[in-house]
Amino acid sequence: MERKGILFVLSGPSGAGKGTVLHEVLQRVSGLAVSVSVTTRAARPGEIDGIHYHFRTQEQFQAMVENNEFLEYVSKFNNRYGTPKAQVQKLLEEGTDVVLEIETKGAAKIRKNNPDAVYIFITPSSFEELTRRLSVRGTESPEVCALRLKIARTEYRSIRHYDYIAINDNLQECVDAVCAIILAERNRRKRNPSLAERLMNPCSKC
Amino acid sequence: MERKGILFVLSGPSGAGKGTVLHEVLQRVSGLAVSVSVTTRAARPGEIDGIHYHFRTQEQFQAMVENNEFLEYVSKFNNRYGTPKAQVQKLLEEGTDVVLEIETKGAAKIRKNNPDAVYIFITPSSFEELTRRLSVRGTESPEVCALRLKIARTEYRSIRHYDYIAINDNLQECVDAVCAIILAERNRRKRNPSLAERLMNPCSKC
Repeated sequence: MERKGILFVLSGPSGAGKGTVLHEVLQRVSGLAVSVSVTTRAARPGEIDGIHYHFRTQEQFQAMVENNEFLEYVSKFNNRYGTPKAQVQKLLEEGTDVVLEIETKGAAKIRKNNPDAVYIFITPSSFEELTRRLSVRGTESPEVCALRLKIARTEYRSIRHYDYIAINDNLQECVDAVCAIILAERNRRKRNPSLAERLMNPCSKC
Repeated sequence: MERKGILFVLSGPSGAGKGTVLHEVLQRVSGLAVSVSVTTRAARPGEIDGIHYHFRTQEQFQAMVENNEFLEYVSKFNNRYGTPKAQVQKLLEEGTDVVLEIETKGAAKIRKNNPDAVYIFITPSSFEELTRRLSVRGTESPEVCALRLKIARTEYRSIRHYDYIAINDNLQECVDAVCAIILAERNRRKRNPSLAERLMNPCSKC
């Protein structure tokens, strides 16, 4: 095996477009696995168990917490969301890169145990633009909107812990940036120790 | 100004294809300036002073050395090569990214004073492949070939100081990798302090 898999953490505030960016990135980058989150919230129309989320009851979720089966888990609007540990670790060990799309709180938890992961913050170029997007969405009440913005203010404070900022004003430019980050990180010398070693020590006949 | 320019150092052994890769990268990446080296060697047919190199006499070169006008300079096969400092520093201060294509010895000198630069090592995937390429080139005597390989062995030892390794077995894949590295580095949070600051501190009205 040439190298271990790289864990990419895609995060940012609600309304930044993380999900759409990830969907496009997956069309373009090969060899990238997505971790499917576990949630206690009800499936929305069209959502499939095991594809969009692993849908679990509060009791099942709590049992997973107690068994230490999560890389991270958070509560949001009375629902719980978590990243199952075993699946991610197996992929990374096999040398497959894994991408997680999670909230900034979850990213902060993962950071503690995964300093080698790559942390990418997706955001529009200004808070004003995020505000505009959340208000024109129209799918949520003004109260939920206001709450999301309040949360976003806190989320932006965590930006200092991220490796990269990918501006999502133009979707294709943001997707280009995230794809470039993934490809660049795959070419990092530190992530390819056996390649570097082999190049430094060519066969004695050469 | 949103950020300072980034200095990209493209290096690797003779025969790795640094020049060809750089030529292709420049077709695809915008906002990237190339530093034109100074040399004492004679211009080859088709080479233009100020475009391919700044051609100077030994005396002129030595005067530049004494005036501390080089970021780095090296001797190779009785000729001297150097990177003029003033031009590069002006571009970086203005926020323009600059790429240098230089030998590993020169890169080592630059590293001492430029820890924030991005160091990319271009190489075929094995020393055996480099050997093959240098021998089939046919433009050089077996003696020069052997000398280049001897130098290459030393050059590979410096690989541990590089940020990235871009494998050049397939030209387009190597160009993709270098372009991705440039785009990714432009999106690094640390290289965009004013953007991060602005996002962390939105206007009080928001």
